[in-house]
Amino acid sequence: MHTLNPTEIDRLVALALAEDVGPGDITTLSTVPASATGSARFQAKAEGRLAGIDFVTAVYAQLNPAVKVELLAADGDLLRPGMYVARVEGPSQALLTGERVALNLVQFLSGIATRTARFVALVEGTGARIVDTRKTLPGYRSFCKYAVRVGGGHNHRIGLYDGVLIKDNHIQAAGNIRAAVEGARRSAQHLLKVEVEVETLEQVREALEAGAEVLLLDNMDLNTLRQAVTLCRGRALTEASGGVNESTVRAIAEAGVDLISVGALTHSVTALDISLDWEP
Amino acid sequence: MHTLNPTEIDRLVALALAEDVGPGDITTLSTVPASATGSARFQAKAEGRLAGIDFVTAVYAQLNPAVKVELLAADGDLLRPGMYVARVEGPSQALLTGERVALNLVQFLSGIATRTARFVALVEGTGARIVDTRKTLPGYRSFCKYAVRVGGGHNHRIGLYDGVLIKDNHIQAAGNIRAAVEGARRSAQHLLKVEVEVETLEQVREALEAGAEVLLLDNMDLNTLRQAVTLCRGRALTEASGGVNESTVRAIAEAGVDLISVGALTHSVTALDISLDWEP
Amino acid sequence: MHTLNPTEIDRLVALALAEDVGPGDITTLSTVPASATGSARFQAKAEGRLAGIDFVTAVYAQLNPAVKVELLAADGDLLRPGMYVARVEGPSQALLTGERVALNLVQFLSGIATRTARFVALVEGTGARIVDTRKTLPGYRSFCKYAVRVGGGHNHRIGLYDGVLIKDNHIQAAGNIRAAVEGARRSAQHLLKVEVEVETLEQVREALEAGAEVLLLDNMDLNTLRQAVTLCRGRALTEASGGVNESTVRAIAEAGVDLISVGALTHSVTALDISLDWEP
Amino acid sequence: MHTLNPTEIDRLVALALAEDVGPGDITTLSTVPASATGSARFQAKAEGRLAGIDFVTAVYAQLNPAVKVELLAADGDLLRPGMYVARVEGPSQALLTGERVALNLVQFLSGIATRTARFVALVEGTGARIVDTRKTLPGYRSFCKYAVRVGGGHNHRIGLYDGVLIKDNHIQAAGNIRAAVEGARRSAQHLLKVEVEVETLEQVREALEAGAEVLLLDNMDLNTLRQAVTLCRGRALTEASGGVNESTVRAIAEAGVDLISVGALTHSVTALDISLDWEP
Amino acid sequence: MHTLNPTEIDRLVALALAEDVGPGDITTLSTVPASATGSARFQAKAEGRLAGIDFVTAVYAQLNPAVKVELLAADGDLLRPGMYVARVEGPSQALLTGERVALNLVQFLSGIATRTARFVALVEGTGARIVDTRKTLPGYRSFCKYAVRVGGGHNHRIGLYDGVLIKDNHIQAAGNIRAAVEGARRSAQHLLKVEVEVETLEQVREALEAGAEVLLLDNMDLNTLRQAVTLCRGRALTEASGGVNESTVRAIAEAGVDLISVGALTHSVTALDISLDWEP
Amino acid sequence: MHTLNPTEIDRLVALALAEDVGPGDITTLSTVPASATGSARFQAKAEGRLAGIDFVTAVYAQLNPAVKVELLAADGDLLRPGMYVARVEGPSQALLTGERVALNLVQFLSGIATRTARFVALVEGTGARIVDTRKTLPGYRSFCKYAVRVGGGHNHRIGLYDGVLIKDNHIQAAGNIRAAVEGARRSAQHLLKVEVEVETLEQVREALEAGAEVLLLDNMDLNTLRQAVTLCRGRALTEASGGVNESTVRAIAEAGVDLISVGALTHSVTALDISLDWEP
Repeated sequence: MHTLNPTEIDRLVALALAEDVGPGDITTLSTVPASATGSARFQAKAEGRLAGIDFVTAVYAQLNPAVKVELLAADGDLLRPGMYVARVEGPSQALLTGERVALNLVQFLSGIATRTARFVALVEGTGARIVDTRKTLPGYRSFCKYAVRVGGGHNHRIGLYDGVLIKDNHIQAAGNIRAAVEGARRSAQHLLKVEVEVETLEQVREALEAGAEVLLLDNMDLNTLRQAVTLCRGRALTEASGGVNESTVRAIAEAGVDLISVGALTHSVTALDISLDWEP
Repeated sequence: MHTLNPTEIDRLVALALAEDVGPGDITTLSTVPASATGSARFQAKAEGRLAGIDFVTAVYAQLNPAVKVELLAADGDLLRPGMYVARVEGPSQALLTGERVALNLVQFLSGIATRTARFVALVEGTGARIVDTRKTLPGYRSFCKYAVRVGGGHNHRIGLYDGVLIKDNHIQAAGNIRAAVEGARRSAQHLLKVEVEVETLEQVREALEAGAEVLLLDNMDLNTLRQAVTLCRGRALTEASGGVNESTVRAIAEAGVDLISVGALTHSVTALDISLDWEP
Repeated sequence: MHTLNPTEIDRLVALALAEDVGPGDITTLSTVPASATGSARFQAKAEGRLAGIDFVTAVYAQLNPAVKVELLAADGDLLRPGMYVARVEGPSQALLTGERVALNLVQFLSGIATRTARFVALVEGTGARIVDTRKTLPGYRSFCKYAVRVGGGHNHRIGLYDGVLIKDNHIQAAGNIRAAVEGARRSAQHLLKVEVEVETLEQVREALEAGAEVLLLDNMDLNTLRQAVTLCRGRALTEASGGVNESTVRAIAEAGVDLISVGALTHSVTALDISLDWEP
Repeated sequence: MHTLNPTEIDRLVALALAEDVGPGDITTLSTVPASATGSARFQAKAEGRLAGIDFVTAVYAQLNPAVKVELLAADGDLLRPGMYVARVEGPSQALLTGERVALNLVQFLSGIATRTARFVALVEGTGARIVDTRKTLPGYRSFCKYAVRVGGGHNHRIGLYDGVLIKDNHIQAAGNIRAAVEGARRSAQHLLKVEVEVETLEQVREALEAGAEVLLLDNMDLNTLRQAVTLCRGRALTEASGGVNESTVRAIAEAGVDLISVGALTHSVTALDISLDWEP
Repeated sequence: MHTLNPTEIDRLVALALAEDVGPGDITTLSTVPASATGSARFQAKAEGRLAGIDFVTAVYAQLNPAVKVELLAADGDLLRPGMYVARVEGPSQALLTGERVALNLVQFLSGIATRTARFVALVEGTGARIVDTRKTLPGYRSFCKYAVRVGGGHNHRIGLYDGVLIKDNHIQAAGNIRAAVEGARRSAQHLLKVEVEVETLEQVREALEAGAEVLLLDNMDLNTLRQAVTLCRGRALTEASGGVNESTVRAIAEAGVDLISVGALTHSVTALDISLDWEP
Repeated sequence: MHTLNPTEIDRLVALALAEDVGPGDITTLSTVPASATGSARFQAKAEGRLAGIDFVTAVYAQLNPAVKVELLAADGDLLRPGMYVARVEGPSQALLTGERVALNLVQFLSGIATRTARFVALVEGTGARIVDTRKTLPGYRSFCKYAVRVGGGHNHRIGLYDGVLIKDNHIQAAGNIRAAVEGARRSAQHLLKVEVEVETLEQVREALEAGAEVLLLDNMDLNTLRQAVTLCRGRALTEASGGVNESTVRAIAEAGVDLISVGALTHSVTALDISLDWEP
């Protein structure tokens, strides 16, 4: 599985430290002797799925390489309240100055992995993949998609450049589904499949005839969804979207779709509660 | 009130477009004629408080200056489902390509403003200010703090550099509260106040004697909180934190504190539902 | 068709001017009065296909907005010796300082378009697409791919991220073709097709059975190539590569492949001769 | 001799990897286990002059420091088909992902060095220096000039800022050669020589009288060239340009000029064929 | 005490080397063999206070890690003519190429520390702090403020964002002192004190009544200054500014002010004479 | 004469505003209504030479394009106390926020121009040029050199890349003067002259014989200087350096040297006193 790019991690951590520490952590510099050392542990306060633990390592490597970071858990691990995920030891100034930045990042990504894992568990055994969307906070696309994978989900296209997804307005501009699909086929490089968003069974048929290779079944009721799936079998992959939440996802999966995309995985993230506790 | 810095907006939008569009929106480029034009409106689908509408303008200005953006609502406006917040008109390619980036940003900031406004409403009339924390996603500090202000909240320090906040571990490293406060006074520039985090009434007294100008009353029960407030009156500002949610905030405010800091305003954001609807 | 991204153009031009002009064009500044004006025309000295004319506009816009640039030809136009492609008029200092940077860029991209057009002409009527490769000079990927499109060619994947192309060493590492294809199917997002590089008819069969959607037929003799095409018909797209030059390309195309990739389009570029001639 | 600046190399490699690998080499990540290791050798497939081998080291250092790179040849070495230039050993994922970027850079620079060496050999014994021009692809000036030196050539000025070269249009704007030379002398710093482009013997005389220290003899026939050289002897350096190719360069050199500038060294580069072959 | 941020140092050194060395130190590269080694010492030629010695380490670390740098003095040390502050040993090329950049930085910062120390000595025993201003060269704010601390001075606010300082024109725009102070109190975060610039005793009273926590006593004669100090005692900190020089500072300090701000510490810096002497 | 590069100006101003204003000018934002407007004038408080006035325009253009800037003096003008150099009118917030950054830059550059003009006046009529050195604060090289030109001085080489200046240690490393000069001649591009630093008449002779084109006569007494000048006449340019100050410069010039380099022009700058005065 793709892991996070260390260069990307370092770039984000540098940005984060510049933003938070800026000209200096004046509290720590004026109250904690430069020679003081200590140790502390990152501890889960809630149940969830860990993601982004490498940020802890990266934050302290940038602040002060003298800090030793020992990872006690790995991305993807199931966390229960009280479990330790990392231990840091070294100059107290660095430990204190980096705490918030490290927590902000790990809590956010773990929040995404945690919710994703919940959705994945709900569709277990159905064959449906939970996939993310482009509803991610700018600058965090690759990190969000990583956390989704950590939670057991799959990724949709990364951006507008690595997949063709023809929506209502594209169809309207092109004239009809066939014209849109043909335009894409002519223009996009040959390693990209063409996906078409449809809302009715008639559109399903039209898209299939036009040669769409994936169909995005948008906001269909379960009955229609099942019929759409039947029509597509052996001819195109099916992706359900719209109205997907923890109550509805199982039934949608059981309708037989290949993929279910869930915007809330990334657009409304609840940080997983993790804290840094000092050792006496 | 401070507004968003246009340079910051442009920088974030450029990053966002590079990330999402990258080498090109292949779907739009291959299905929508470059000459096609259209119009669409950003519409609220839920009730909330608008924040970040300038991002709509910035996204389209960068994508194609030929897009005309008309703002139909202003940051801080109360939105109800169905209300329009902006209308865009121009080349269809740009309208389609920019939609997601614009929505991602406006929905996130409006989500923060909406929750802040709820907290602010809950403490109305008590004199307590709702303030944010440093629990913000790296790269978004200034934007999050702006959205908090839009929602009627106030900002705490921006980062580690514009305020002294002495916590437990600083005190421990310095020896005691008095030593920590004196260290800060000696070292920090003279326009910064010194805030000390305390958990007991004894610590409250110690901090006041040491000359702390603000006290962070952490996780106190209401009874203790009220006594702490009494001790501080006329001598130091009081800030409550810990265990603050929509059920508890009113009682905390009525205990008489000056400020209540709420991490959830920014660390767990629910995007406000806004969508882009095309005009026929 | 995708056009060049104006932001990318401006970024490259800024880099180019910083590199070439640096602290100042000392010759021009010390010999040409700031008030002097003039005009000049960019003229083709050889036959070819124009690409990158927007760089002329961009160079002078950055150097001095007072320079008026009139484009006399468009990207894709067939140039014959003596034809003018642009006319510039304004402060002589800027005209002189920008000349080389503008020429370096237009000549390079036109060189690519020119050679591409020659290959495209050679396969006319066969149904085969001429496609580029990743053999482009770092920093010029998108510009090279644009020039290929201008010359009538098509693009292969942009980079390693928007297409799966399983080569010999991937197969070896995965164990066999089937394992490699399945790994890709499991891990890559669902809008990406899987292409497999093969050298023998046995590998062709193995790849088809594994579900490869595109086959890269590498360095096959014409006879083998025809058989491979026959095997793939209706089951997978075929791409020929290796040993492709202006003498061999027609026969390869007539073997029935869908795509022919040509590294030399971009890795060995002969600049198209264009010069700037001053008007008296 | 100036070597390549390691910072410049790293910057270009970072750009190249960002461009080619982007969000991830999905083929390699999904088919090659992270734990797999291997080894491979960069091998020349054609005769030429090696340049830029440090890019191999830099590419793999950035991708994964666990890759060991052993250089088997040095810049400037004469390569014959089959010779190995470097051996890499380590994680297979990194070996595969970096291959193309490393090759693109080494092939391009070696292409320049190879052609330069050919020109240098052609003028051997005449005393003439082969020098480059400003006809380089933006962003590659210093790399191209390095490759020219590797091939035994010399550099002309780096950009518009480290040498005065007065051309026809500068003369026209200044009024006459004398005025142009005097303007340059007055304004340019005193460590820069003044070169003047001339086309006739009359202009040669005028330039010499004006105090030009170098004369660029542009497009002169051999007879005129010889007379110009005679006029300049002991008074100014002479540089020939225009109409220089592998057939004409010897005669031009024998006319007695000090320098011969050749645009084609860098504006029309044929990549030297080098490939990466895996060891079993 | 806050030390310099290593990241900031590295960034500035990289900029400095790019600016000074650019495409290459042609003199050194063409006259000094790459294999030559040597050693040299940085020596004070005048009396002063050392600041910025870490720049020596950083310059050579970037140029060539093979250079060994031994620091012979520390920031804050009193230097006398002839004292050595650092010794460098290694490749002669790097020693020569980095000399000027290292000296430019150390001499400038030591110049600031030296003058600050002089002012600090002049007010010794009075209880007044010497503080800096925002009169620093753009890009050097944090370095200048560091040098002031090294010289025994204190810092005023870092920029416009970490302190409220209400001047004449703010008061005028707000209507009066009370309105300005209240505006600041309402809008600035609660850890920032409010300072008001006043010129008369009446304004002193008005500012104190409005709740100003610091008073900037601008250009007052000594008599007025003493009265202002008396009025402020126990109610606000006092800062004197205007007309401060080495002749006047003692009397101003004896008037009882808490702080004296001196623009000349940073706006008019005399470089401390330090040179690099080669060891035979 | 070369003017300042607008791109460089904008880059520096952006840096300066980011550094000084950072997250916001909290005083101005909280005391001055966004709608308030005003006007003010930049006024000289001391006699000197104006340089860098374009920074005023650039600062306000970046802060708020609604500010109108009227320049009342031009770079190079002789300022007398009380003279106005620019008038700004527009939103009071922007006027106040930009004041310090604009002043810091104009005062610094004018300080350089002022001192340069003093030196230039002192050598009037002698034919000697006053030139600068590489003793400039990193990041300010081109701005310092511009200010020197504004003051009537000339520039020495810009950096280590556009001129050969062989010093004592280069000579020692090369073996002797002849070897050093020949190395430079072989390696440096042909448009660069070779300058050699000498301290004795014997070295003068040696350098001339080696073909040095410029001689840097370092720290010679006047008698030796005159003899050196005589030796060099018609064979090489002469530059005096060392021990140059306002008392000695005239005699040095009268010794007949072509150039006199003065480090103090840029390494120890006294800001010219200019202030911003509000109009009632």
